[in-house]
Amino acid sequence: MTETHVHNTASEKFLDQVRWNSDGLVPAIAQDHLSDDILMVAWMNREALALTVAEQRAIYWSRSRKKLWRKGEESGNVQSIKEIRIDCDEDVIILKVEQLGGIACHTGRRSCFYRTLDNGEWKTVDKVIKDPKEIYNK
Amino acid sequence: MTETHVHNTASEKFLDQVRWNSDGLVPAIAQDHLSDDILMVAWMNREALALTVAEQRAIYWSRSRKKLWRKGEESGNVQSIKEIRIDCDEDVIILKVEQLGGIACHTGRRSCFYRTLDNGEWKTVDKVIKDPKEIYNK
Repeated sequence: MTETHVHNTASEKFLDQVRWNSDGLVPAIAQDHLSDDILMVAWMNREALALTVAEQRAIYWSRSRKKLWRKGEESGNVQSIKEIRIDCDEDVIILKVEQLGGIACHTGRRSCFYRTLDNGEWKTVDKVIKDPKEIYNK
Repeated sequence: MTETHVHNTASEKFLDQVRWNSDGLVPAIAQDHLSDDILMVAWMNREALALTVAEQRAIYWSRSRKKLWRKGEESGNVQSIKEIRIDCDEDVIILKVEQLGGIACHTGRRSCFYRTLDNGEWKTVDKVIKDPKEIYNK
């Protein structure tokens, strides 16, 4: 195989292996590196993954704001990278992280997955650790 | 609010709350209910989630084959449902499962996330438990 990208250095090869979707994105699952709880799922583009690796903190692509999202930039709840994994068909990433502040969700909960299906209804089962007003208005 | 769906029974309300993407799908993360290892990520449409709940086994939508995919229908590696969670913006599902056979990945590994980023390269770190030929040609 010949190199087709002029800027395709050795350190970017792992980015080429990712199967970005038609929007240039892949889902990234943030998982607590100690408890293995799934904290949240967000999206990454190529730049987000490159920066995540370079800065060793989770950096996502915000589809709503259409810009890079350094997790914790407002809340302080930075995700420090411990390990990065990819799946067999190379279209999903896992970030094993240390969740600073212990809160990943904008609702003030540890994880965004705080509702469970109970007899045909989504029931909230995890408690709010910190009032979101305290997280974002400081 | 008034009911707009004729067939919107109480038991289908939880399906209406899911924010299906423009293709009518959401990603579903299968997580081992005991070890909390993330086993795989696949996609679900409304019917797949409804059937997963009804049959208490993981049923996905295969985007490549464009049909329902009863996980384990060929391999025997059925995923029995222990719990279903949804995230704060209702566009990702977690299935906590018992992975029958101990193998979720078509490569014969426990998890599809068997490669880790190591010094700029995706390195395989998890072993094959069973030769895929033995899984699918029986």
